[in-house]
Amino acid sequence: MRELTGISASPGITIGTAFLYIDDAFTVPRYDVDESDLEREYERFEEALEKATQEIIELKDQTSSSVGGNENNFLDAHILMIQDPDFADQIKQNLKGKKKNVEWILQQTIEGVINKLSSSQDSYISERSIDLHDVSKRVLNHLMYRERISLADLSAEVILVTHNLLPSDALAMNTRKVKGIAMDAGGKTSHTAILARAFEIPAVLGLSAVTSIARTGDTIIIDGNRGKVIVDPDEETLKTYEEILQKWQQREVQLATLNQLPAETQDGKHILLGANIEVPEETDAVIAHGADGIGLFRSEFLFMQPGGVSDEEQQYEAYTRVVKSVEGKPVTIRTLDVGGDKAIPGFEQHSEKNPILGWRAVRFCFSRTDLFKIQLRAILRASVHGDLRIMFPMISGVEEVDRALELLEEARSECREKGQPFNEDIPVGIMIEVPSAALTSDILARKVDFFSIGTNDLIQYTIAVDRGNERVAYLYEPFHPGVLRLIKMVIDNAHSAGIPVNMCGEMAGDPIATVILLGMGLDVFSMSSFSIPEVKQIIRSTSMMEAEELVGEIMEMKSYREIDEHVRGWMNAGYNLEGYTG
Amino acid sequence: MRELTGISASPGITIGTAFLYIDDAFTVPRYDVDESDLEREYERFEEALEKATQEIIELKDQTSSSVGGNENNFLDAHILMIQDPDFADQIKQNLKGKKKNVEWILQQTIEGVINKLSSSQDSYISERSIDLHDVSKRVLNHLMYRERISLADLSAEVILVTHNLLPSDALAMNTRKVKGIAMDAGGKTSHTAILARAFEIPAVLGLSAVTSIARTGDTIIIDGNRGKVIVDPDEETLKTYEEILQKWQQREVQLATLNQLPAETQDGKHILLGANIEVPEETDAVIAHGADGIGLFRSEFLFMQPGGVSDEEQQYEAYTRVVKSVEGKPVTIRTLDVGGDKAIPGFEQHSEKNPILGWRAVRFCFSRTDLFKIQLRAILRASVHGDLRIMFPMISGVEEVDRALELLEEARSECREKGQPFNEDIPVGIMIEVPSAALTSDILARKVDFFSIGTNDLIQYTIAVDRGNERVAYLYEPFHPGVLRLIKMVIDNAHSAGIPVNMCGEMAGDPIATVILLGMGLDVFSMSSFSIPEVKQIIRSTSMMEAEELVGEIMEMKSYREIDEHVRGWMNAGYNLEGYTG
Repeated sequence: MRELTGISASPGITIGTAFLYIDDAFTVPRYDVDESDLEREYERFEEALEKATQEIIELKDQTSSSVGGNENNFLDAHILMIQDPDFADQIKQNLKGKKKNVEWILQQTIEGVINKLSSSQDSYISERSIDLHDVSKRVLNHLMYRERISLADLSAEVILVTHNLLPSDALAMNTRKVKGIAMDAGGKTSHTAILARAFEIPAVLGLSAVTSIARTGDTIIIDGNRGKVIVDPDEETLKTYEEILQKWQQREVQLATLNQLPAETQDGKHILLGANIEVPEETDAVIAHGADGIGLFRSEFLFMQPGGVSDEEQQYEAYTRVVKSVEGKPVTIRTLDVGGDKAIPGFEQHSEKNPILGWRAVRFCFSRTDLFKIQLRAILRASVHGDLRIMFPMISGVEEVDRALELLEEARSECREKGQPFNEDIPVGIMIEVPSAALTSDILARKVDFFSIGTNDLIQYTIAVDRGNERVAYLYEPFHPGVLRLIKMVIDNAHSAGIPVNMCGEMAGDPIATVILLGMGLDVFSMSSFSIPEVKQIIRSTSMMEAEELVGEIMEMKSYREIDEHVRGWMNAGYNLEGYTG
Repeated sequence: MRELTGISASPGITIGTAFLYIDDAFTVPRYDVDESDLEREYERFEEALEKATQEIIELKDQTSSSVGGNENNFLDAHILMIQDPDFADQIKQNLKGKKKNVEWILQQTIEGVINKLSSSQDSYISERSIDLHDVSKRVLNHLMYRERISLADLSAEVILVTHNLLPSDALAMNTRKVKGIAMDAGGKTSHTAILARAFEIPAVLGLSAVTSIARTGDTIIIDGNRGKVIVDPDEETLKTYEEILQKWQQREVQLATLNQLPAETQDGKHILLGANIEVPEETDAVIAHGADGIGLFRSEFLFMQPGGVSDEEQQYEAYTRVVKSVEGKPVTIRTLDVGGDKAIPGFEQHSEKNPILGWRAVRFCFSRTDLFKIQLRAILRASVHGDLRIMFPMISGVEEVDRALELLEEARSECREKGQPFNEDIPVGIMIEVPSAALTSDILARKVDFFSIGTNDLIQYTIAVDRGNERVAYLYEPFHPGVLRLIKMVIDNAHSAGIPVNMCGEMAGDPIATVILLGMGLDVFSMSSFSIPEVKQIIRSTSMMEAEELVGEIMEMKSYREIDEHVRGWMNAGYNLEGYTG
């Protein structure tokens, strides 16, 4: 038995048989080509490009009906890559310069670009190199008359174990047969992760070496909830997981019945449950899980595209697509939150000693107002298509709110000048994730239309702990009395000023925290779509009166341990939390 | 004119003539030595060691009277290095292995060790490599019959410009002639910095390239207050600095008259002014500047010694020396605060992505209770010699206080078992520098005898800003209303529980903050010794009533800019702050 820990990329638990899918390496020939034959080589390249393009278009057609949403949109990017005239030019140049066969020229050229992309510390960028690899492999296959290996022909149910799934392989795969995915590479924003979530296939990525441990035929457990993969489990583990799986499935069925019911407490208070999304493709899941809207639409993906930052039109289209797809429900777009742990592609690289306390979010945007205003205008313009809202991240004090509002006003004027319509009353909010913002939330509340508490960062700063640092992660504790006091202070200050409070950190989707947040008066809980049913169930089983009583009790307590024990005891008396709380 | 920015290592301003002191490089010969002559080579080494030892002993005798304190103590470490039998063994081994002349062997061996030390990110360790260089140079000089260059013979007043002053050169130099120091290398804890502070010579270190800019004879300005060096100033700058210097000198004279007066407000409230020190050698300055004790004795130097962590006896002696030297005044020792930006020598090196939010201080000590208890026992034992107090850094919540007190209780038991006397009532306090501790200071106040607010970290965490990061340092603002509210909360909670509050961050020594902190009820201000007279003067010119009134006004304000302007306006009306506030 081997237990591996990776990134929980798509939730759910599955037990099955491993299928090790290694995309076989093949050797690209290298030989000299006479000057006179160079044109012929280039023609071969063009023919292969043409065939590859056709193939991608077919794949797009085939999958459009099966995947329903926009999960195959990346194929458009693949077509763009193939048809990029600069790319063709470069191949032509290299052919002339090196006088070698075009397969070899193609491979060398692509490798150069991929090496550059892969060395980026940013996961968005390094993951885009996989697209380039995918496309070039497809062209090479045609040049070398090879058949492309396909995952479409799987005949038995398997758990796919692979190093790094090419996006088009992932798309072509027989999703009725793939019951889980374990992958060496990849992160939460990789195509594989997005597809896995769309198809609701449990997936754990970023496992580093699962392909060197699991063999085809091995029994394997994928725990997408906890980011665990267990290869060749012993009898006891297997039994435990079979029980967990059974309960999980029962609960899923039970929770699914909640999707169309409102999140209403026993004593009739209606709570809004929002979804957090990273890419527009996730909106189907948002609707499917009965979210009341999108509480946090992270906009970083738009700034991490292969071709550089999305321009105003591309952003406008993306925002419009999302707001139209949620049937009139509210969508809150968080403005660019790069920096910190997320590198800023295409911009001056500078390493920071403490990136979490560094040049991030609005701190970055205020020095790149050109980029910032492109985003603001795109949001404003999309606001006519639905209930769109703007939210500024990493606000630390009143000066930053003033500066953000000033830039928004400039963006408004620019739209007016161009005669572009927008919602004049678009709600504007701020993230409360810096302690100084929480501590002055009475002042800030008078400046904006809503707050959204970002607990992940707020907890890190409040307790001075990087939760990504294994040595100190134990200190990261949402139930620290200092944290709870800050959260309550923010909610109370917001309500005194008559504005609502959302929460979009992980705490909002943690069932253990639901009743406390309810009792504190939180208005909107925003979380991953798949957490919604569970939180909804808890809200529907609780009354505000008992929630407020519980808050009254814990606010008197001295330590997080005391609070944690008390809340877990309280919850266990009323709910079955097994399998949900680690 | 060239302006350089470095580390302000010793305060004061001086204008003078540069003297470029380049310790001339010389080439060490390299030749083969016959097997039969190896013994003779080793004897030559031993003779040179002996002469070097004598020389150091003489230097120590000569300087004991002139420097008064313990500034020449490092010479003992030099003697220990020279007499280290492992070192001699290694030379013997390398002689046998390489069969080269001993000068060359010595240089190679030392270089290997120095390279290792220099690559350490920790300033304490990398600075210790200079000692090794100093000692080896001394031995090499004897091997090669060279006279050591000496700074003892300076006949005119100069500003010393050098790459890196060897500690023994610094000690031997004619301090009546050296009016300022500008150095490429070095930091606040280097020997040069410590000596400069002891002799009150303005010094700016860590300038990187001052030796490649300044030439002997150049006019040069050393601004030790701001860490600036101006080489070949233009007329206007020179004039400005002459005025600043004059005012500074007048003020120094005026402030010196305050040394024996108490820090008492106009309406008779007595405030305690403590000193912050890094090494025991600084206690003379503490007394000279009229401090009421040592509010922060950083103990990291004990764990950064060339020979590794100081043992219990060495620590006991160091603490005893300090507490005895301050004439019965209180001395607060902060327990080991390594980690974060301070690497932990001799321990597993692990790079952290966000060290400020990482494995530091008590977080480190709780996993190395062996080291921690050695320190606690040494402090306890030294407590019989004066008014010693213990303070735990980086406390984030009640569990950490409980754990620290538990370990202290174990240390007490261990002392009792060995029959070692200690002060049973030794006061125990905690640093309040993590927002969660400040937010729960009502709970924590019931557990300890005093608080000490560490504003440097508290501000960084509260505003989520690494002040060492140039891009965002502008956000580091002691007058952010969120920060001021936290500080007031801590003071109010402490006073409700009947315990006093110290402050030992830079804010405590900032004249602009003095009246605000006074008005908030801060009991003890602890700062660099040289800041004491200025803060004392402000306290003596202010009444509690007006300070409280000012606090009442600023607590209503919405932004740090508003507060900053208001306080500066208020101060300028009553005090002449020119030359002090940048």
